[in-house]
Amino acid sequence: MTEFIWPVRVYYEDTDSGGVVYYANYLKFMERARTEWLRALGFEQDDLLNELGILFAVRRAEIDYLRPARFNDALHVTASIKNKGKASLLFQHEIRAAGDGQLLCRGQIRVACLDAAGFRPTSIPEQILTVIPDGG
Amino acid sequence: MTEFIWPVRVYYEDTDSGGVVYYANYLKFMERARTEWLRALGFEQDDLLNELGILFAVRRAEIDYLRPARFNDALHVTASIKNKGKASLLFQHEIRAAGDGQLLCRGQIRVACLDAAGFRPTSIPEQILTVIPDGG
Amino acid sequence: MTEFIWPVRVYYEDTDSGGVVYYANYLKFMERARTEWLRALGFEQDDLLNELGILFAVRRAEIDYLRPARFNDALHVTASIKNKGKASLLFQHEIRAAGDGQLLCRGQIRVACLDAAGFRPTSIPEQILTVIPDGG
Amino acid sequence: MTEFIWPVRVYYEDTDSGGVVYYANYLKFMERARTEWLRALGFEQDDLLNELGILFAVRRAEIDYLRPARFNDALHVTASIKNKGKASLLFQHEIRAAGDGQLLCRGQIRVACLDAAGFRPTSIPEQILTVIPDGG
Repeated sequence: MTEFIWPVRVYYEDTDSGGVVYYANYLKFMERARTEWLRALGFEQDDLLNELGILFAVRRAEIDYLRPARFNDALHVTASIKNKGKASLLFQHEIRAAGDGQLLCRGQIRVACLDAAGFRPTSIPEQILTVIPDGG
Repeated sequence: MTEFIWPVRVYYEDTDSGGVVYYANYLKFMERARTEWLRALGFEQDDLLNELGILFAVRRAEIDYLRPARFNDALHVTASIKNKGKASLLFQHEIRAAGDGQLLCRGQIRVACLDAAGFRPTSIPEQILTVIPDGG
Repeated sequence: MTEFIWPVRVYYEDTDSGGVVYYANYLKFMERARTEWLRALGFEQDDLLNELGILFAVRRAEIDYLRPARFNDALHVTASIKNKGKASLLFQHEIRAAGDGQLLCRGQIRVACLDAAGFRPTSIPEQILTVIPDGG
Repeated sequence: MTEFIWPVRVYYEDTDSGGVVYYANYLKFMERARTEWLRALGFEQDDLLNELGILFAVRRAEIDYLRPARFNDALHVTASIKNKGKASLLFQHEIRAAGDGQLLCRGQIRVACLDAAGFRPTSIPEQILTVIPDGG
């Protein structure tokens, strides 16, 4: 599994009066893809929180908005690992039109593993790290 | 203080591709007014949570959408108590155009006091109840 | 098709710092169900807008919040017609935990057909009305 | 006016079940600051759309999340011009705690001027460009 694809439908809630998806909402779509990617690897984030006391938090986001998505569009949101560290992961995301595959939006998101109690950086648990593919 | 007014500006984030404020977002505006009303009475909700272990949760909402608000509109959101119980409050909200006062949206929201640990109904602390005006 | 069920997963974007789904976001879930219900009947809302010049707008919402949904919960959102008029539809929605079926939230939403140009009430086109089941 | 400051209060709507402001919502705060900055310069975006047929759309965002903002926090969101082009503007934003001024989040947002009809890049109208300060 080097690239993971999650389908997203654009609803009214995602759009703005410019007639397109509101720029902050692409970050929601990318997080849905990261969440489902982690679930596909066998990890539920509420279990990670309750059993291991960790959560993942975004440290940095770089987003390029290339073409607008619109109401009722069917989208494909990808998630892949670009760089895998001991305590953080760099994700690469692409958002494409489901129909013709045109690239609409691209993101690089750095996510850090935090202990939930103190919100401080901590190592990604070994059981997770071993199943995350190396980036590249 | 029988009626409290909180100004709200409509940004792109609040609108949808229909060109108007998205219907769920009026509930955000009403909650901002309730929060600021409570602050004006002298209560900060993070203190209520940390010191008294309580929070307020919505039990029921009735919203009438009369005329749409649009991008960049200046709005006045009111909050007033319609009914004051020992463990819950019924709020009346109106959202009006700031310019001509035209009524756009009206809501009745029942809010219950919960203990934050167990999410169970509990009495509104006396120190709060005494300063909340009677409804009517 | 008397009841339509649409699955919704709760992501971080849907929750608030009370640890539960933010109260306005249940309205997003209900609209996703209405949209997918209409799609299942054969109608795409962007086509309705572009070809017939109509859109559906919410006139009134009554929501009962019974039990909170939480981060990572899998939900089932139902949509069914409670009352079918010439120019408006009354929807009944239920939001249940996908696992044990426990009822979390219930809504009645009145939706009016509007001409998109003037935002005025208009009749639901006959081709749509004939395939919408009678309420009850 | 080399730096513009817009106050933002964190409401429940802005937070997530991690107990902090949801990462996409900082982009909403930054856009509110850009909108109010433009208003302070004398320009209303609905007038720009209706009278000049232009709107501003985000092309690229770089966000660094340094420390989390939490429920009920009072924030100061700054907007300043880092680079001023003929058809696009590069904004620098900082989000600080209103109390102690601690830096929580930093963003660079490139905004392009588009003709609203075709969503194509166009020059920023001269009447706007002349009152926008040079970046640096």
